[in-house]
Amino acid sequence: MKIAIDAMGGDFAPENIVKGVNEAKKNYPDLEFMLFGDGKKIRQYLQDENQVEIIETTEIIDFHDDPVTAIKTKKDSSLVRAISAVKNGEADAVLSAGSTGALLTGGLMLIKRIKQVSRPALMSTLPSADGAGFDMLDLGANTENTAQHLVDFAILGAYYAEQVRGIKNPRVALLSNGAEESKGSPVTKEAHGLLSALTDINFIGNIESRDILSGGADVVVADGFTGNAVLKAIEGTASLLMKQIKSAIMNGGFSAKIGGALIKKPLSSLKDLLSTDGAGGAAFVGLKAPVVKAHGNSSAQAIATAIGQIHRMLASDMTGKLVEHFEKRDQH
Amino acid sequence: MKIAIDAMGGDFAPENIVKGVNEAKKNYPDLEFMLFGDGKKIRQYLQDENQVEIIETTEIIDFHDDPVTAIKTKKDSSLVRAISAVKNGEADAVLSAGSTGALLTGGLMLIKRIKQVSRPALMSTLPSADGAGFDMLDLGANTENTAQHLVDFAILGAYYAEQVRGIKNPRVALLSNGAEESKGSPVTKEAHGLLSALTDINFIGNIESRDILSGGADVVVADGFTGNAVLKAIEGTASLLMKQIKSAIMNGGFSAKIGGALIKKPLSSLKDLLSTDGAGGAAFVGLKAPVVKAHGNSSAQAIATAIGQIHRMLASDMTGKLVEHFEKRDQH
Repeated sequence: MKIAIDAMGGDFAPENIVKGVNEAKKNYPDLEFMLFGDGKKIRQYLQDENQVEIIETTEIIDFHDDPVTAIKTKKDSSLVRAISAVKNGEADAVLSAGSTGALLTGGLMLIKRIKQVSRPALMSTLPSADGAGFDMLDLGANTENTAQHLVDFAILGAYYAEQVRGIKNPRVALLSNGAEESKGSPVTKEAHGLLSALTDINFIGNIESRDILSGGADVVVADGFTGNAVLKAIEGTASLLMKQIKSAIMNGGFSAKIGGALIKKPLSSLKDLLSTDGAGGAAFVGLKAPVVKAHGNSSAQAIATAIGQIHRMLASDMTGKLVEHFEKRDQH
Repeated sequence: MKIAIDAMGGDFAPENIVKGVNEAKKNYPDLEFMLFGDGKKIRQYLQDENQVEIIETTEIIDFHDDPVTAIKTKKDSSLVRAISAVKNGEADAVLSAGSTGALLTGGLMLIKRIKQVSRPALMSTLPSADGAGFDMLDLGANTENTAQHLVDFAILGAYYAEQVRGIKNPRVALLSNGAEESKGSPVTKEAHGLLSALTDINFIGNIESRDILSGGADVVVADGFTGNAVLKAIEGTASLLMKQIKSAIMNGGFSAKIGGALIKKPLSSLKDLLSTDGAGGAAFVGLKAPVVKAHGNSSAQAIATAIGQIHRMLASDMTGKLVEHFEKRDQH
C-alpha cells in the first residue's frame, strides 16, 4: 500500500508533513510513501528514507490559486504530481494539507469518481459528547444537491463508518429542520423516502443540527451548502465560547485567575474533544481512490493520524467494496 | 397601541406570561394589553387590571397539535383568538410563547403577509462577541427559498435592525459557503447579484456561518432550511460546551471544584451572553402586523423584553414603513 503525499501543502509544510510521516512509519511498516516536493527541505526533517521515495517537484499550489486554473497549469506542483501518481497507478491514495479546492478539483479531474456515484462528497469525523464521534457529509464539495446525491452520500458515509471506523451497522441520519418524517425541504423529503426504502443501510430518519453533537447518529447526511454552514457554525461557536471563557477568566480578577489555573487541566480535555488532531483529515469520498485533506495547520500528530485513517481505508478495501455496492445497485 | 397576548401558550403559562405583562406595564404606560385565556388563572398572577382587558377562551393549542388543523378547528383557543384580534383591528400586534408552527400558520392565514413581500420570515436577534448582536432570518418559516425571497428577507431585516434596534445603515450580509462573491449555491449567487444592485440597503456581501457570531454583520440573510440548521447548530454547540465545562469541573477533582467556584461569576456573564432573556422573541416579519414568538420556556423577564420589542416595532411604525417601501419598489 503506497500513499502519495503532497509534502509542500499546508501552513507548516514540509516540516509537519514529514514529521507526521516519520511517526506513521513506526505504526505502519506495511505502508510506503511517495513524498512530492523540495527534496532538500524534505530531507531536513525525514528521519530515514526507509519506506520512502522522494520525488522532486518545482511548483507549489497555495490558498490564493484558483483551483481549476492551478490544477491545469501547475503541472509540476507537489499536489498535482501526487494526485497524478494515484491516477497513473503508482500510488493507492493521496494526502494533502494544502488547498481544499485544488485537492477536490484535482481529485475529481484526475482520479475521477466511481462511475455509479452521482457526486463525491467531503466528509469529516466530528466530535460528539459521547466520545464516539460521527461522520458528516457533504461538508462543501457541492453547493446544491438532489435527493439522489443525498442517497449516495448516505451509502458512502455508511461504508466509511463501518469499514474505517469499525462501527457495526452504523446509524445513518438525514439533517433536517425537524426529527419528524414530515419535516424538511422538498429535496430532503424526497431523500427521506428513498432512504427509507433502502434495505442495506441502517437509516434512522431525520436529525436536527442541535442533536448531532450529542451522538444521535453515526453518519449525518446533508447537502453540501447546508453541511458546510453547519460545520462552520459549530466551529465558530466553539471557538468563540472558548475565547469568551478565557477572557472571562482573565478579566474576572485575582480569584478568577486562580480558578482558571485550577481548571486548566480539566478544560484541556475539552480542547482535546474539539481538536482535529485525533480525528484524521476530511475524506473526499466517492472517488476511485482515497483522497484525504488534512487541516492546513495540521500538527505532525494530525498528519500521522490522517495516514492511519488512509491505512484503514486501504486495508479494508473500502473503495473496492463501494464499487461493488454501486455496480450491484445499478444492475437492479 | 394594543398588544394581543396568548396568555396560555408556553411551558410556564399563564404565570410567566402574566408576570411579564406586570413588568412591562411599569415601563410602557402607553401600551394596552388584551390577555386571552383562563381568566381565573390569569387574575391569580395579574397585579392589577390597569391597561389590561381579559378575554375568556376555552381552548389551548399545544406543541403536539398539527398547526394547520389547530388554527382551523380550535377557534376558541387563546392563540387563535389573539391572532384574530389583530386581524379584526382590535389589537395592533400579537405575542405568544406557544407553538411556533401554529403562530406562523395563524399569522399567515389570518393577519396575512404584506402584499408585495414574497415570503414572510422568522427572525431572531442572536448574540455576538462584540455584544451588539445581529438579526438572522429566515430561521425556518420556509423550507425552500428563491433568490427573490432572500432579497425580501434582506429588506425586512434591514428595516428591523434600523427601526427596532436603532442601528443606522445596518450591514446586511448573505450567508454563504465563502466570503468571495463567486461562492454560493445557485440561489445565493443569484441573490448576491440582486442584492448588489439594490441602492437602499447596505449590502456587504457574503458571510460564512463561522463569522456571524463575531459581529461581522448586523443582519444575516439565509434560506429557511439553512438558517434553521445554523441556528440549531449554534444552540447545540453552546449547550454541549457548557455541559462539558461543568462536567470537566465536577469530575476534575477537589482543586477543579474550587477553581469552578472561583470562576462561577465570570462564567455567568457568559451565560447572559447566550441567554434569550435579553434578546426578545423571534419576530415573524413580512406580515401586516407585528407577530412575535417568545421562547416556550420564557421567564417573566423574557416576556417583558419581548413586549418592549413589540413596543419599538409599533412606535417606529416599522410595518407601515415596510408597506411603503415595497409599494414603491413595485411601482418601478
